[in-house]
Amino acid sequence: MASSTHPPPPPPASSSLSPPEVPMALHAHNRDKLLRALRDRLAAASRPLRGLVLLQGGEEKTRYCTDHAELFRQESYFAYLFGVREPGFYGAVDIASGQSLLFAPRLPSDYAVWLGEIKPLSYFKERYKVDMVFYVDEIAHVLHDRFKESGKPLLFLLYGMNTDSNNFSKPAGFEGIENFETDLTILHPILTECRIFKSEMELALIQYANDVSSEAHVEVMRRTKAGMKEYQLESIFLHHIYMYGGCRHCSYTCICATGENSAVLHYGHAAAPNDRTLKDGDMALFDMGAEYNFYGSDITCSFPVNGKFTKDQLIVYNAVLKAHNAVISSMRPGVSWIDMHKLAEETILESLKKEGLILGDVDEMMAARLGAVFMPHGLGHFLGIDTHDPGGYAKGMERPKEPGLSALRTVRELQEGMVITVEPGCYFIDALLGPAMQDSVTSKFFNLKEVERHKNFGGVRIESDVYVTADGCKNLTKCPREPWEIEAVMAGAPWPGCGSINKATANGIF
Amino acid sequence: MASSTHPPPPPPASSSLSPPEVPMALHAHNRDKLLRALRDRLAAASRPLRGLVLLQGGEEKTRYCTDHAELFRQESYFAYLFGVREPGFYGAVDIASGQSLLFAPRLPSDYAVWLGEIKPLSYFKERYKVDMVFYVDEIAHVLHDRFKESGKPLLFLLYGMNTDSNNFSKPAGFEGIENFETDLTILHPILTECRIFKSEMELALIQYANDVSSEAHVEVMRRTKAGMKEYQLESIFLHHIYMYGGCRHCSYTCICATGENSAVLHYGHAAAPNDRTLKDGDMALFDMGAEYNFYGSDITCSFPVNGKFTKDQLIVYNAVLKAHNAVISSMRPGVSWIDMHKLAEETILESLKKEGLILGDVDEMMAARLGAVFMPHGLGHFLGIDTHDPGGYAKGMERPKEPGLSALRTVRELQEGMVITVEPGCYFIDALLGPAMQDSVTSKFFNLKEVERHKNFGGVRIESDVYVTADGCKNLTKCPREPWEIEAVMAGAPWPGCGSINKATANGIF
Ligand SMILES: [Mn+2]
Ligand SMILES: [Mn+2]
Repeated sequence: MASSTHPPPPPPASSSLSPPEVPMALHAHNRDKLLRALRDRLAAASRPLRGLVLLQGGEEKTRYCTDHAELFRQESYFAYLFGVREPGFYGAVDIASGQSLLFAPRLPSDYAVWLGEIKPLSYFKERYKVDMVFYVDEIAHVLHDRFKESGKPLLFLLYGMNTDSNNFSKPAGFEGIENFETDLTILHPILTECRIFKSEMELALIQYANDVSSEAHVEVMRRTKAGMKEYQLESIFLHHIYMYGGCRHCSYTCICATGENSAVLHYGHAAAPNDRTLKDGDMALFDMGAEYNFYGSDITCSFPVNGKFTKDQLIVYNAVLKAHNAVISSMRPGVSWIDMHKLAEETILESLKKEGLILGDVDEMMAARLGAVFMPHGLGHFLGIDTHDPGGYAKGMERPKEPGLSALRTVRELQEGMVITVEPGCYFIDALLGPAMQDSVTSKFFNLKEVERHKNFGGVRIESDVYVTADGCKNLTKCPREPWEIEAVMAGAPWPGCGSINKATANGIF
Repeated sequence: MASSTHPPPPPPASSSLSPPEVPMALHAHNRDKLLRALRDRLAAASRPLRGLVLLQGGEEKTRYCTDHAELFRQESYFAYLFGVREPGFYGAVDIASGQSLLFAPRLPSDYAVWLGEIKPLSYFKERYKVDMVFYVDEIAHVLHDRFKESGKPLLFLLYGMNTDSNNFSKPAGFEGIENFETDLTILHPILTECRIFKSEMELALIQYANDVSSEAHVEVMRRTKAGMKEYQLESIFLHHIYMYGGCRHCSYTCICATGENSAVLHYGHAAAPNDRTLKDGDMALFDMGAEYNFYGSDITCSFPVNGKFTKDQLIVYNAVLKAHNAVISSMRPGVSWIDMHKLAEETILESLKKEGLILGDVDEMMAARLGAVFMPHGLGHFLGIDTHDPGGYAKGMERPKEPGLSALRTVRELQEGMVITVEPGCYFIDALLGPAMQDSVTSKFFNLKEVERHKNFGGVRIESDVYVTADGCKNLTKCPREPWEIEAVMAGAPWPGCGSINKATANGIF
């Protein structure tokens, strides 16, 4: 690109990070948790405590008709139970004994030439700390043998709907499965419920992913300058998390939105590929998160491209920050997530009203769902091995119908052990403001001149990953949030700095 | 990671690169070429010059059952003809008139909130410089209307085997296709043949991808130090091509192999993920290439991690370099690729013999296919929108049976306009050396003591992307290749430096 779009030489990048060893006890613990829950469920139904949980891991995929291999990433339920990074595996857990089994693909001899050493089964047994390892082509035989004394062997397979995608998980399949009794209904809801509540070992990985990503976000803020391309900031983020954090995968495609793009919630994909040139006076909204050993992070920072907030930018930014902090201050077990969403909406509406962008009674606005015009997405979602970790809606939980609330990825009450994102936002989206300003119910709330002035503002989102504790919560994300912190960090101040702990780091006792 | 594994602060990265504008005339030219070839083919068969070529572009994919969207990359044949970066399109070319049509997906209204502005059809007409744009749901209607005067409309669909993957391309499908006559046989071989011969506009993109990647390889060489992790060098490469080159995609997963890993031809995938710590005295083999506007590069550099070749390293390196240069010096239209492969093998065997690693008559070694023990892969492959660009084996071309030759991705004679990789290598692979040293025919060739001494050497590969000209060829890759160049560049000398042009830059007249 032209030299004017090159950033000045960056200060030497550095990092305090060190990719941690991952204990396989983490996945053993996940299996134990599943076993306990599954046995309880069977016992409650007066069913025998027998059978095997059987999951099929992911396969490497090639691109269209070519031999271009996409970089493999393990299926998330399989990763949860077994932590296996290689494609082509199956895994089983015996409900009676609790023993764990892996089935490894039998690799052709030329694998050794093209793809690497063919590892013996003992390698996988040692690496993944399971009780037994066989070859995939032995599944039917092995599982049958273990169960021949107790009638037709019973397999619990994973089949159920992901409530974010409406897609169904694919139950394990193998040659000879027709000789087994299979249960497709019990496993999915129980295993999904297990994933909602994070162990200390899981939490440590999510914290690490947050630490890496927080540091990378700060690096990005410091190097952001007018004239750069959005994707250059994406590149700086990706480089930081991989170079210093050992994170090869992101939790999701980076959203590097500046100017009016910051009003596009999922900007950054192939049809809107982070290719705008940054301008002096823009706001930036960067939503980027690293993944480490399958566990992810999901962090959004919003800040002025030139390092100094304008008065208008401060108004919108502070409205969102106040909502972010209000929610985190209120989070504790028993609190309804719908209420948290409404708290965020209300806080933002109050601020916008105070600053004269909207007019009238906030309760009336809430009743008219005006909050959904400025924040059309849900307040947050579970986070874990998936960015949108499953379990938001268990059987019987209904998705609300009202605008804004209908976008919620969960309607649960908070419980200890959940990790959930808190990501209020305030956006000026033509496609929503236009109709709302025409609507007979909502039109009266708008100060047309003020809203018109924000037409190309874009939006602000502040997103942190929050762990629910026994009596409150803990913010795992460590980015500068106060406007003065952001301006100081962008001007080169150290981070974390003295006295710079977020107001919304936590609540409750630590 | 521990501070000892951190490289010293790098010199400020810089680059002379500037991502070029991509002319849509490139894709129009590709369509014209197809039209000419298709009309010739129809005329030769005394068939009417009527009907439409119809291709279906790629779709965005989600990961397993989740809503995690994989970053979309267009299907390669579709990219070739239309250059469309968005998912969900169809494209057609009318054989009689030559007119081009795109069909864009009709996006739901909430796309504007989540994914960005819903572009009018005129936007795509202007952006992709086609004659007409409709919605995907209008395909049957539009195509039918255009052809109602000439009987049942005829569609030429893409169906044929990729000879690298043995997978078949998926012909376009849409509701109502049963009302059309379809031809699945003619299009694939003709379109594949078109892709083999690069236009000047295509060549310019492949050259740019090579320039970006060459520069990034040099940056990687300079920053390589014992104590680093292989993936840190991958990260430096990825950052350089994206930050300075605007390349979001690589042509393939980076192979960052050091030490014994350099004997694993396709190292770097999820089960062998570039996670070794570099040691003083290792050789590095880094096979990495950027993609720009669909067109790729494929470059391998081999060099000593500590910046100074040992005598043993020089022996193997120079054997491969001599083969690399010998092939490039011999490449011109009419030359058989099988002969080039044999030339590389022979050159390597001669060198190994001269240095005492192997013994006996080189002709005898060639007859016994000893070259395939040290270089089990083919000498190179077509390069373009796919890393292994299609067309290596047209109908009737037989894959050789002999070891080594059977791995060739093409057996064609070279022709002007081809871009092909030249990537000889010499590896010490247990899985191949073991049996060969036992084999009654080949065992006599080995100096056991010498080969044993190289047991953990790994391997060397030198890979350049070469364009075949009217009377010779041109090397598009600009990496340091001579050992002295590599040592100088790693010690900080500028690149390209004075008098540092590769011997094997080209042959023929420029
Ligand atoms: Mn989020
Ligand atoms: Mn290659």
